[in-house]
Amino acid sequence: MTNEELLTATALNSWKLIIDRIDQNLVPLTGEQLQKQVAPDKNRLFYLLGHLTAIHDRLFPLLGLGERLYPELDEPYITNPDRKLADPVSASDLKKAWTEVNSKLTAAFEKFTPEEWLQKHTAVSDEDFAKDPTRNRFAVVMSRTNHAAFHTGQAVLAK
Amino acid sequence: MTNEELLTATALNSWKLIIDRIDQNLVPLTGEQLQKQVAPDKNRLFYLLGHLTAIHDRLFPLLGLGERLYPELDEPYITNPDRKLADPVSASDLKKAWTEVNSKLTAAFEKFTPEEWLQKHTAVSDEDFAKDPTRNRFAVVMSRTNHAAFHTGQAVLAK
Repeated sequence: MTNEELLTATALNSWKLIIDRIDQNLVPLTGEQLQKQVAPDKNRLFYLLGHLTAIHDRLFPLLGLGERLYPELDEPYITNPDRKLADPVSASDLKKAWTEVNSKLTAAFEKFTPEEWLQKHTAVSDEDFAKDPTRNRFAVVMSRTNHAAFHTGQAVLAK
Repeated sequence: MTNEELLTATALNSWKLIIDRIDQNLVPLTGEQLQKQVAPDKNRLFYLLGHLTAIHDRLFPLLGLGERLYPELDEPYITNPDRKLADPVSASDLKKAWTEVNSKLTAAFEKFTPEEWLQKHTAVSDEDFAKDPTRNRFAVVMSRTNHAAFHTGQAVLAK
């Protein structure tokens, strides 16, 4: 492996580790268990799983990987706080959506060459990217990995 | 910047972002505010700050950057759960330790070349590193970045 390949493989491994941790902590839970809040008056596990699914689903267009799969999750799990809207999906459909979104993303990431990791994401203009080439796909995926770790830390409190 | 430099700069930025977030969320708190638990029967903010300081302090020997600064934090904040031992430091000394440890680490990371990022960490043998070259400094710092994000997600619940 070249140095570039080692660096991107390490970051991809970090992404996979947090996805695995959520797979192990949240996906096996029943619909009733997902209704539990991480702390009094804080988000339900169901909301956190919906939020992470919606945020990751947004990566398809952001990274130039195609259309979103579940845009309907934005309104209840990004735009609005928990319990403002009724859940539009069942627990089992939400878990399926989580798994599908992340399987497809990980499969796409595994095919990226270092040059493809360093391409600009679609929310930055050519001019701005020329000024700051760190606004690339690699930065976006590292940021989402940290975001997932942040909410996983909250989710484990409900155990 | 070369591709390698862009990749390592992006990861370093991710580390700095989470350190900044903790600087903003925990360091301004009073000793009394740091006694707050993130949720009923869960860790105090003081414990989380001690834990993160101790874990980051361990990076000095692990990354070959020299001796530890605060080994006495391991016993109360890594080996034992919260409130098992009395806090051996005041809030103001703990905040100073946090800031010193991370300032020194970040200054060292900023000087790493891509080759230096890819050197093995000191807890892996030459033989094992030859088999798996992803057991490098870069992987360790990404892992600690995610660990810090995990506990930051918990700390913000105490707000």
